[in-house]
Amino acid sequence: MAVSPPSPRVTISDVARHAGVSVTTVSHALNGRGQVDPATRRKVEETARALGYRPNRHAQRLRTGGSSMIALMSSMPFAVAGGPSRLGFLMEVASVAASSALERGMAMVLVPPLESGQSPLDILDVDGALIIEPSADDRQLADLTARGLPVVSIGRPGGDAHGAVPYVDLLSGPTVQMLLAHLQARGARQIALVLGAAQRTSYAQAELAYRQMVDASGMDHIALRLDEARGEAGGRDAARLLLAAHPQIDAFLVLVDVFAVGVAQHLQQAGLRVPEDVMIATRYDGIRARTCEPPLTAVNLHLDQVARLAIDLLFERLRGNAGRQAVQSPMPELVARASTR
Amino acid sequence: MAVSPPSPRVTISDVARHAGVSVTTVSHALNGRGQVDPATRRKVEETARALGYRPNRHAQRLRTGGSSMIALMSSMPFAVAGGPSRLGFLMEVASVAASSALERGMAMVLVPPLESGQSPLDILDVDGALIIEPSADDRQLADLTARGLPVVSIGRPGGDAHGAVPYVDLLSGPTVQMLLAHLQARGARQIALVLGAAQRTSYAQAELAYRQMVDASGMDHIALRLDEARGEAGGRDAARLLLAAHPQIDAFLVLVDVFAVGVAQHLQQAGLRVPEDVMIATRYDGIRARTCEPPLTAVNLHLDQVARLAIDLLFERLRGNAGRQAVQSPMPELVARASTR
Repeated sequence: MAVSPPSPRVTISDVARHAGVSVTTVSHALNGRGQVDPATRRKVEETARALGYRPNRHAQRLRTGGSSMIALMSSMPFAVAGGPSRLGFLMEVASVAASSALERGMAMVLVPPLESGQSPLDILDVDGALIIEPSADDRQLADLTARGLPVVSIGRPGGDAHGAVPYVDLLSGPTVQMLLAHLQARGARQIALVLGAAQRTSYAQAELAYRQMVDASGMDHIALRLDEARGEAGGRDAARLLLAAHPQIDAFLVLVDVFAVGVAQHLQQAGLRVPEDVMIATRYDGIRARTCEPPLTAVNLHLDQVARLAIDLLFERLRGNAGRQAVQSPMPELVARASTR
Repeated sequence: MAVSPPSPRVTISDVARHAGVSVTTVSHALNGRGQVDPATRRKVEETARALGYRPNRHAQRLRTGGSSMIALMSSMPFAVAGGPSRLGFLMEVASVAASSALERGMAMVLVPPLESGQSPLDILDVDGALIIEPSADDRQLADLTARGLPVVSIGRPGGDAHGAVPYVDLLSGPTVQMLLAHLQARGARQIALVLGAAQRTSYAQAELAYRQMVDASGMDHIALRLDEARGEAGGRDAARLLLAAHPQIDAFLVLVDVFAVGVAQHLQQAGLRVPEDVMIATRYDGIRARTCEPPLTAVNLHLDQVARLAIDLLFERLRGNAGRQAVQSPMPELVARASTR
């Protein structure tokens, strides 16, 4: 079994530059197509060999009829169940995306970050990638785009650097507006916002929606950002700190589900009743929201349809269609539970 | 982008048979190696073209130095989070196996069953596969072995049909013995056993361990099998039926975590206290066990190490080593929680 060496990929452009010919000539020479004079063909072959050039596997597959390979990447480790907060989200996307990809003849590979820090793309010759809610400084997205690989982001990429990356819009602004409106309708007079610290579009849009609501309602602006790796303990600390400083808080909107569980734990320890004294709502309606005590009001993001849309969008790119820059997810739906009733 | 047609794969043997030559001759003719006379080479090429033969991609990768592709298969759908009971188990294995595979230069593809019933192996040209706790009649395992693909099972395959499939032994018998001994040590006098209905080795070994305990202790033999797709409702029904027929039950050993959550729900509804009136224990220590009310005593199966062992075993097979037939997982560890304290 062959394992490719972890070296930077030599591209067809490198071969063309070193051989002093065009990329098309290299392609024709190596693939035995078109008109290439024998001396040029030899020169190209020698250059390719000297540089250690391997033809792109996607190009090979186009010829051989093999199936494509796409990566599902995440800046969060694909760690153990019940660990990182975003694992449920990730795996819900993974399961549907794998099926959709397979129906289109594509193999979906789980590509976790390597502990060594090496780029997985030096090892795997993928044809394209899905990436989930990348932050502004996401290394994996930068790696993908630097290699010119087709990539589709689930959720708009954070920051401005990735403006050209097509994405499925998760409608984070409207989602947060809906949650805030729900909490207000249930009587909340002072809502606190708890977010992850990463520069994700979903957080930026949540902050914007929250600020607009604060301005319109006259509530105090009470928001806290936490490192996403802090888990339930982070949520407990956030609730304790915020309530100590602002005892008037009667509702928490906590975008990260595992933080929301921590908030619920602190409220219980502090003898506060949910929802009578303090309400809690979160975003992703995963197993954590459903199994929290009490169960948490959350949002159905229609991740099954989101995953299918992302695969469709990537499929367009792989076929070489300029295609759409962004598609919208179906409108998220509120799932009201005991934490706000 | 090329999508391979969903037709049965034409093998090199088919080409050899139709061309009236040996497999070695076909290989040499198509790869431009060895001594093949030009007329034979032409005949082989024409036959390969006529049959629609594509060289095996693994063989191609051996030549081109591309990375290998392995499948992670499961007879359970890779469905939404919080859905099927075994998803957490599956995804915990998937996350670690993907990392281990990548470190060995292999791409791990999630391969869910297709709704159409078509074999994913007609679409994806994988080099080998991991399969999780296949039952005796597992179609995916049969499909893999019929194609002669290297496969490693996580958990011993059910039944006798798959005797030759290498596996990581999950030590299901000792695991259940440990759980039963724990329940007895906590004072259980009548333990009921609840299992899934599939013919999995873990259930067969659990039944055996339970029967031995019943014989040794003089307890009544009270066991029930449920369709794994029934979820929490199945667990509630099982608890209701068993307690109605056998009110002396003071402990449930429920091998499927989602059933165990249903049992806890029924006990609460029936006004029975856990653990004072009835204890509950389950097998997989996933998020369901941890977030159940009360949290459930379960077993740390060391799935991270299990996944690495499985990748190692598959790697041996892919390299052509006859290798080991079975490796043992590390000894599972009891995680005692409120449901038995």
